[in-house]
Amino acid sequence: MDESLRQWDRIIIGIDPGTNLMGYSILGIKSKKPQMIAMGVIELSKIPNHYLRLKRIYERVLTLVEQYLPDEMAIEAPFFGKNVQSMLKLGRAQGVAIAAALSRDVSITEYEPRKIKMAITGNGAASKEQVREMLKRILCLKEQDLIPQLDSTDALAAALCHFYETSRPIAALSSAKSWKDFISKNPDRVKGNY
Amino acid sequence: MDESLRQWDRIIIGIDPGTNLMGYSILGIKSKKPQMIAMGVIELSKIPNHYLRLKRIYERVLTLVEQYLPDEMAIEAPFFGKNVQSMLKLGRAQGVAIAAALSRDVSITEYEPRKIKMAITGNGAASKEQVREMLKRILCLKEQDLIPQLDSTDALAAALCHFYETSRPIAALSSAKSWKDFISKNPDRVKGNY
Repeated sequence: MDESLRQWDRIIIGIDPGTNLMGYSILGIKSKKPQMIAMGVIELSKIPNHYLRLKRIYERVLTLVEQYLPDEMAIEAPFFGKNVQSMLKLGRAQGVAIAAALSRDVSITEYEPRKIKMAITGNGAASKEQVREMLKRILCLKEQDLIPQLDSTDALAAALCHFYETSRPIAALSSAKSWKDFISKNPDRVKGNY
Repeated sequence: MDESLRQWDRIIIGIDPGTNLMGYSILGIKSKKPQMIAMGVIELSKIPNHYLRLKRIYERVLTLVEQYLPDEMAIEAPFFGKNVQSMLKLGRAQGVAIAAALSRDVSITEYEPRKIKMAITGNGAASKEQVREMLKRILCLKEQDLIPQLDSTDALAAALCHFYETSRPIAALSSAKSWKDFISKNPDRVKGNY
């Protein structure tokens, strides 16, 4: 294990699966603060064979999991597509990435693109460029920290969305003035009748 | 390695992926003759969580690959489905099974259901029961060798179809009376103009 990874309370790997380009990101959490550790893309378009593409995805995701030892995986997963053929291919790409995580007991949560955009920008219909700009501000990233491919920032957005989602009760509570205020603002997070 | 596996010239694993039930088969080839070594199903319907289902598929296929050391995988892969949602799920199930094979360098070939039925029964629209009956005859199987689930015989059909496809030139040639006859019967297998 890379000793520098010990500083993190929690590590999330974000994946934006695609059949031409797959974005990935590693997000570290320290004292409840998120920080980008690594991000990039897995190039697939030059690989002519469908199985070799799937193999590349599997091996690269497995390498990332073994290198950064993430606790959780957040995956951007559109549930609707243009046609059944493209969805089958996308499902396979997702499947091999998921298998790489499952093989090392990394828990997986998937988020629809709209949900991720909403979590990062407050607008479920935000452009990929807007998501990228917000990530730069939230995570204090400089332009040179980023690569041009927007799939990488999409993957980082998935990881950050997962961090927000899994730490929401505390965040929501701290912003509420009282339990009554919290309950009225978060009716879906409260069981029973009040 | 199980010593009894050494007797086979070649071992093919057949997979019929599904999200409720996944069929599998192990077909051994000795002196160009196919023989069923094992077959069964992976039960998934009782597993409520989608990721646990994918994990079960991955782990079971990986176990089969490590146990029987197949050279190749033949997978039944429908390219058209009812809707994008079901195709995405099917793609994921296929993806994790493919990942298990790729992780052990097993080469993969996929066949459409129609092609498999044609190879086994001579009728691309044959029923699963007809496929099962033909397999019993071709591979000299008794009723007690089989399990009730037709997904298992579908997986065996995929493996046998792959055996036929990969040994077709010789089979086609031996049934042809001459090169001229072979060429006229197999125009798609001949390069150039004759």
